[in-house]
Amino acid sequence: MVTILKLGGSVITEKDRAETLDGAALDRASDAIKNARLGGRATSAPADLVVVHGGGSFGHHHAERHGVSTDVGTDDAGAVLEIHGAMTTLNRFVIGRLQDRDVPALPVHPLSLAHRGASGELTLPSDGVEALLAEGFVPVLHGDVVPNTGAGATVLSGDEIVADLAGTLGADRVGLCSTVPGVLDAEGNVIDRIAEYDAVADVLGDSAATDVTGGMAGKVRTLLDVDPPTWVFDLDGLPAFFDGASPGTRIE
Amino acid sequence: MVTILKLGGSVITEKDRAETLDGAALDRASDAIKNARLGGRATSAPADLVVVHGGGSFGHHHAERHGVSTDVGTDDAGAVLEIHGAMTTLNRFVIGRLQDRDVPALPVHPLSLAHRGASGELTLPSDGVEALLAEGFVPVLHGDVVPNTGAGATVLSGDEIVADLAGTLGADRVGLCSTVPGVLDAEGNVIDRIAEYDAVADVLGDSAATDVTGGMAGKVRTLLDVDPPTWVFDLDGLPAFFDGASPGTRIE
Repeated sequence: MVTILKLGGSVITEKDRAETLDGAALDRASDAIKNARLGGRATSAPADLVVVHGGGSFGHHHAERHGVSTDVGTDDAGAVLEIHGAMTTLNRFVIGRLQDRDVPALPVHPLSLAHRGASGELTLPSDGVEALLAEGFVPVLHGDVVPNTGAGATVLSGDEIVADLAGTLGADRVGLCSTVPGVLDAEGNVIDRIAEYDAVADVLGDSAATDVTGGMAGKVRTLLDVDPPTWVFDLDGLPAFFDGASPGTRIE
Repeated sequence: MVTILKLGGSVITEKDRAETLDGAALDRASDAIKNARLGGRATSAPADLVVVHGGGSFGHHHAERHGVSTDVGTDDAGAVLEIHGAMTTLNRFVIGRLQDRDVPALPVHPLSLAHRGASGELTLPSDGVEALLAEGFVPVLHGDVVPNTGAGATVLSGDEIVADLAGTLGADRVGLCSTVPGVLDAEGNVIDRIAEYDAVADVLGDSAATDVTGGMAGKVRTLLDVDPPTWVFDLDGLPAFFDGASPGTRIE
């Protein structure tokens, strides 16, 4: 039973202020993870949980400044290190808060292992993640920059990592903890269930321009391709997700 | 043409003082790397160079305090993070000095990708390293802690990384930059060439107890199994190594 939880970058950071943590939100998420009952182990050591977090005000800020996105790369090692460094700083905050609660979280940095081919296709070997899980650790990955054939290095979004790992790890449940209680319709109500993009295209539109890694429209498109059922919810819905309930929007 | 350079932990740190960089030594090594002519590119961007560094006073100190070695592991995520964190701190120093010299160095952290099986056998996927090389970057790896089947996490030495990558990358030359000008005989003279361990066993003895990752005897044993020719030299020998000469001791 593998559960993947994505913590949205805008949930755990203050997205409008560069490199500013939302410590209260991260504490709430960390409490929910600590209290999660996933694999029958002690609550302080949830078995078979993989956490992935986005960039929020840590990653996007630097990526935009250097003109780097998921399909526009850079050869500048200094730019890559700046974006990556901001993400690892955020990653250390996340891991620190989890370890404070006796959750055995450890960092996995995509720049160390992943890469894209010439058409942007992702290769993300999951050997290390699986080995960490097998030893009872909780791997914590993050949006990052990765080498991209012919383009230097491009952004790899947390959502892409979630979609890829859901397949390679054979995950049972995937949760996206966002700033909204689910995918919203035109009236601002949570859509209970999405099974195909066309049914919600009018509402979601093409939000690719609002976020370096795709926004909600991109998330829904990506998640529709994921095999296990996926939920989009906010911090209020996170405990319910871990309890096996169905908070927010179910995408499948 | 792939060249692998190992920078000994005791070369770039003051091994007797916890977490103390030897900045002057690291500057000398970084200058030699900047000036290296390896792949026909500009001297500021040596092509197909992989750098691996040891732990010195950053890694060994924490590993010993937690009783963790290459074959004794820990389940304590806090201990793993402390050892790993010290190593990533040293790694950032190395990368910073290289980037200061326009060498496009980027970090690769073994904890993110490598693991050991139940008998300690190493799996180190090199996809990411090869992708970084292909885009002209210089991957910089380091001794680390990695998940180990049934043992939590154990130490992975820089020498093991060098030996493994030499095979998977099909390296042409491997250099170990040490604190001594080569492997020394009983009179303190550099041994020119070592082709089998038995020939030097009396001189090297069993030094496994002096270093959490094996000392010179362990290095020689490990390097004898490496396919490409390997040299052991000190900082004075590093420019000669990059020039294609044969400084210090040749092990093959």
